[in-house]
Amino acid sequence: MPSISEKGRAMPASPIRKLAPYAEDAKKRGIKVYHLNIGQPDIPTPEVALNAVRNIDLKVIEYSHSAGNESYRRKLASFYNNLGIDIAYTDILVTTGGSEAILFAMMACINPGEEIITSEPLYANYIGFSTAAGVNIVPVTSRIENDFALPPIADIEKKITPKTKGIIICNPNNPTGYLYSREELQQIADIVKKHDLYLFSDESYREFCYDGASFFSSMNLKGIEENTVVIDSVSKRYSECGIRIGSLVSRNRELISTVLKFAQARLSPPGFGQIAAEASIDAPASYFTDINREYTARRDNMVEALNKIPGVYCPKPKGAFYTVVKLPVDDADKFAQWILEKFEYKNQTVMLAPASGFYSTPGMGVNEVRIAYVLNINDLKNAIETISEALKVYPGTIRS
Amino acid sequence: MPSISEKGRAMPASPIRKLAPYAEDAKKRGIKVYHLNIGQPDIPTPEVALNAVRNIDLKVIEYSHSAGNESYRRKLASFYNNLGIDIAYTDILVTTGGSEAILFAMMACINPGEEIITSEPLYANYIGFSTAAGVNIVPVTSRIENDFALPPIADIEKKITPKTKGIIICNPNNPTGYLYSREELQQIADIVKKHDLYLFSDESYREFCYDGASFFSSMNLKGIEENTVVIDSVSKRYSECGIRIGSLVSRNRELISTVLKFAQARLSPPGFGQIAAEASIDAPASYFTDINREYTARRDNMVEALNKIPGVYCPKPKGAFYTVVKLPVDDADKFAQWILEKFEYKNQTVMLAPASGFYSTPGMGVNEVRIAYVLNINDLKNAIETISEALKVYPGTIRS
Repeated sequence: MPSISEKGRAMPASPIRKLAPYAEDAKKRGIKVYHLNIGQPDIPTPEVALNAVRNIDLKVIEYSHSAGNESYRRKLASFYNNLGIDIAYTDILVTTGGSEAILFAMMACINPGEEIITSEPLYANYIGFSTAAGVNIVPVTSRIENDFALPPIADIEKKITPKTKGIIICNPNNPTGYLYSREELQQIADIVKKHDLYLFSDESYREFCYDGASFFSSMNLKGIEENTVVIDSVSKRYSECGIRIGSLVSRNRELISTVLKFAQARLSPPGFGQIAAEASIDAPASYFTDINREYTARRDNMVEALNKIPGVYCPKPKGAFYTVVKLPVDDADKFAQWILEKFEYKNQTVMLAPASGFYSTPGMGVNEVRIAYVLNINDLKNAIETISEALKVYPGTIRS
Repeated sequence: MPSISEKGRAMPASPIRKLAPYAEDAKKRGIKVYHLNIGQPDIPTPEVALNAVRNIDLKVIEYSHSAGNESYRRKLASFYNNLGIDIAYTDILVTTGGSEAILFAMMACINPGEEIITSEPLYANYIGFSTAAGVNIVPVTSRIENDFALPPIADIEKKITPKTKGIIICNPNNPTGYLYSREELQQIADIVKKHDLYLFSDESYREFCYDGASFFSSMNLKGIEENTVVIDSVSKRYSECGIRIGSLVSRNRELISTVLKFAQARLSPPGFGQIAAEASIDAPASYFTDINREYTARRDNMVEALNKIPGVYCPKPKGAFYTVVKLPVDDADKFAQWILEKFEYKNQTVMLAPASGFYSTPGMGVNEVRIAYVLNINDLKNAIETISEALKVYPGTIRS
């Protein structure tokens, strides 16, 4: 039997899905499992998007342009323009989810063996895509003690070597919920410019900023217009994760024309998804204000409830719908498996994402988990109560 | 400005799309352009597929399982079983088009710098995906004089080196329309087994076999069960290229679990597309007999008309809906551009795909083009008449 490739062996299993078999077993035993592990919101997809698909009047579902339907690209450009991001539709390539935008950006910009710097904890799939592209992730650790703020810029700059080709940020951050300030982004822009790097800015959670905080796009950083690549997705914005539509945005013409060649090899992004995404732009403004109010309430409830549990610390995230929480346990991987396998409270249990998979540095995040607060407040309360009760009896709980 | 990666620079522009700007210009001049360049059929998508999407009753379009919806995988397994291919649904991963199946197979099985053997002319995107994966394509040339039959197996075996990890075949073949016989496939299986290689068998055109010829799947080759990986797609089968649904099929458990890790990084295949693809399996048998009759008539008309043109040779393909044709010209790339840019006949012209982009060996296919016979017979006749008239006046026509 021929061997699997080195990339295949190195490819990490998804930290948010690796415990899925234990969750399935718990469900088979009749236990209700609250899924805090995956960023799959329960928010309805806009009706206007679903109706656009229901009303399709096509005889053949043809390939679209490899860069996406021109009508969608033009409308998406207007959407960005309305947010104060000055770009043309030709600066946009529609991708198969934000996922493909990340892969294309890495393949088009970074040679195998070269490096990309990012703060950790990080979006776990950056590790997956960098493995696929043969690129090395160089992490700079952000700390829960500082509520996962950007590490000192000097620490980031120290990591720059002749092999460094770019910095990737996720803002607002998955998994920490941290929202970068304009000043922090400017500091990043300064070293990007100084060292002539790419800045990959994953802005998939742009619409999820709380407490009146405003979002500042990396596209508006001055002096690095040719270096900046925005990765975006409609998955979370319109709660349509399953349609697989994202975008890659850059004013760098050479970059866009290079990414287009990768896009041509895979022919086109999903057709039905493009129809839904284009229609979604007409969702009413109230769609976002309602969602924002709902997530703010969920976050406030969750943070308060978690911080009441002895030994638990949960920062108050300003964006996205995740938080990385410190638990008083020996090993969060073991705890997350144990709570599914051996524990139930009122016939309920919880699936968590151990944070170790969100660090590139081995051994980090050993007592942390990522929680996605994508459940309604009542379910969230029950889930957190279950965690609280579990910590009382888990054999590896550390009592101070 | 930071530089583009080596892969980005090496990535070929799609041979079927690189002349698109000239076609656009011709259309702007009011000229009708017949598209023989791209395998985008005009055949209607099955109503049952479109209706399944029109009737969706979902509130949230969620991520599916990374391997695809279980209901679709089970139904697809039954579809294969009915074709005499004995596999379980757990042997199937649903992919974003056949494209993603090719990329995943290369990434999971072949290390950068290793080699994969294929006959040329080849499906051009194999070059694109091998560039993305850092894999080297080693071509064995099939010749138009032999109607693009499989080259002698000894010629293929001579190309095997310690770096060879697999052989990729496309059956029926895009771009030549050649249908491999069971004997040819057995010869390939013998060297796959002898040298312990992977056999990647792209069977996206399985349903398009003419003259009563039957299709033999590589999944039914004995003794190489763990080596065989089938790449499939619903794009052509149900004329739904735009939904982006394909599959990767293998009985090799380690391979499937490795590919699943790549699939997890990109989260899930398109949701609406999976709904359409699952429903398509219920298309009536008449759907295929009608299509088969239509393509047979198109092929017969086209082959006859082309071979009547002085200096033109078109083999009679037994499968798919492409043919590679020899033209009496100095350079098919130049001719294909000239016919769009400088020529019209009765206010019509033709977009062709120069065959040079379907060869991995530089300088090959210089007087060949690929034609996709995806137009109705009347349009095909007009298109071929236009080519015939163009060859009378093209400055680079070679008269014998």
